[in-house]
Amino acid sequence: MKPVIVVHGGAGEISDSRVQPKLDGMRKAVREGYRILQQNQILDADFPSVAAEAVTAAVRVLEDLEAFNAGYGSVLTEDGEVEMDAGIMEGKNLAYGAVGGIVKVKNAIDVAAKVMNKSEHCFFAGAGANRFAESQHVPEVSGESLKSPFAIRALERFRNSENITNEIDDADEAPIVGKKEGSRGTVGAVALDAHGHLAAATSTGGLTGKLVGRIGDTPVIGAGVYADNDSAAISTTGLGESFLRALVARRISEHVEKGEKSNVAIKRALDFMEQRVGGDGGAVLVTQSGDIGIEWNSTRMGWAYACNGRLHSGCNRHEDFDESI
Amino acid sequence: MKPVIVVHGGAGEISDSRVQPKLDGMRKAVREGYRILQQNQILDADFPSVAAEAVTAAVRVLEDLEAFNAGYGSVLTEDGEVEMDAGIMEGKNLAYGAVGGIVKVKNAIDVAAKVMNKSEHCFFAGAGANRFAESQHVPEVSGESLKSPFAIRALERFRNSENITNEIDDADEAPIVGKKEGSRGTVGAVALDAHGHLAAATSTGGLTGKLVGRIGDTPVIGAGVYADNDSAAISTTGLGESFLRALVARRISEHVEKGEKSNVAIKRALDFMEQRVGGDGGAVLVTQSGDIGIEWNSTRMGWAYACNGRLHSGCNRHEDFDESI
Repeated sequence: MKPVIVVHGGAGEISDSRVQPKLDGMRKAVREGYRILQQNQILDADFPSVAAEAVTAAVRVLEDLEAFNAGYGSVLTEDGEVEMDAGIMEGKNLAYGAVGGIVKVKNAIDVAAKVMNKSEHCFFAGAGANRFAESQHVPEVSGESLKSPFAIRALERFRNSENITNEIDDADEAPIVGKKEGSRGTVGAVALDAHGHLAAATSTGGLTGKLVGRIGDTPVIGAGVYADNDSAAISTTGLGESFLRALVARRISEHVEKGEKSNVAIKRALDFMEQRVGGDGGAVLVTQSGDIGIEWNSTRMGWAYACNGRLHSGCNRHEDFDESI
Repeated sequence: MKPVIVVHGGAGEISDSRVQPKLDGMRKAVREGYRILQQNQILDADFPSVAAEAVTAAVRVLEDLEAFNAGYGSVLTEDGEVEMDAGIMEGKNLAYGAVGGIVKVKNAIDVAAKVMNKSEHCFFAGAGANRFAESQHVPEVSGESLKSPFAIRALERFRNSENITNEIDDADEAPIVGKKEGSRGTVGAVALDAHGHLAAATSTGGLTGKLVGRIGDTPVIGAGVYADNDSAAISTTGLGESFLRALVARRISEHVEKGEKSNVAIKRALDFMEQRVGGDGGAVLVTQSGDIGIEWNSTRMGWAYACNGRLHSGCNRHEDFDESI
């Protein structure tokens, strides 16, 4: 089995000035995940598969970069704080771990992975998510250390939305409560390892101005993340409430199970969402036979993947930057 | 369209002494929901359908009774507190509302319904769920007022599990962390109203000794609750982590969409769960044509339904108490 990793860096109205940082970041994340897949060894024995470890490592890279709405760079709540959601699933045993509304950790995906690997429970939210992280010796960081200038500016614009002019500002692309358009820089990764195991991971800061305690689709199995070795590994990005109500990730996997081609499977699930509940976004997937799916119904979606020693990436429709890895 | 309501009162090892209180409570809940369905008028204008209002009312009745693990009577966390999960979905617009780990409210399902009816968000967890409830003028109650003698005794037995004897105690049936058997007295309701709209609602206190902030399947769309007018309204009960990982509610609806009979659809989803992740429980459903499904793979499951002026109920396999309503 040839290993494959696919990442996304969010979908929506990505402003021109943020395209290059996103491409650079996604390529870095793919290289990190692909390196682990090629080594083909589980480094942290708690992980159930190389694929699960690879998607965690790739998402961690994206969380650490300001260009994405996850980890450092997450958008801010109504209270001006970073509250993060993250989820991971692996396809062999359908193991799943997630955190919702976690604060003051550098990498929410690491905590979600520890939930999957170390807990009898699958999903922790609110203060309990931080308590679980502490029990696993995840270091606490200051809330301030997670706030990027971009996210702070986006919240200022949200709070003063009556003052918005026609002047275009990068902060306009930040995903905002009640706005059906805009960028949603959620990050995610899906992987197939050399043993044929699939895994998916997704991480986000949510929406600028979201109410405290709001959980989006990202950490929810079947909405923002899904993996089954008999089907596909899927990570989604878009308007969380729409992806939740349409259960987009599971719906994509249903179409894969029916024999649809990967991109068609994603398109059908997005069409269902658009028709029944509205909203836009996209998804990436990989199947056990190594088929890759990358599709979106928003203006742009950042994506990158590695297989057969090549690294592909893009952000606009019909774009495919191809380089050796 | 003839209205139908089906409720469940949890599945598992229900002790003999709790069978009658559960039957009485479920019959009361069904009568309350059926009364609303027969009136066929939306009383609270925020609700999108009579079906959604009826399932909320039925679940509220069950939450208020000690015989069930929801609202008053919820089992206690490791800290000895009541933390509740609840979710509701309606099938016309796929509207969905949920709360996870909410404390100090009498009826978690009322808060979930307010999330569905009044918020741009779908899901609130932890302290933010209580903050949302406060913003909607939901009265705060004391944590003590939610603790039943049964739940307190169950936590004592959990904490002193080395002292458990062969003596049988009602508290033995309380769902316990790490125990794959035991009762799981989650409650739920599904309904079809005279306009052909479907809705589902589920509410629970979770597991005795659960870690603070643990979210189970109950509030999660596609796991503990699901509704789509083109498919079915479904509420599940059982080991939350298993129902999450197997996405049981959505999986049942997939089988209904493929044309499976209602009980077969539930059985297939439970079989998938058992084979892939283990765990037991059950589910109830109703379709837009009024077909009812009631199935479980645990020892017992409490259920009751009303249609055509008759009220049916049971707890053991092949049991069907039939009375006029």
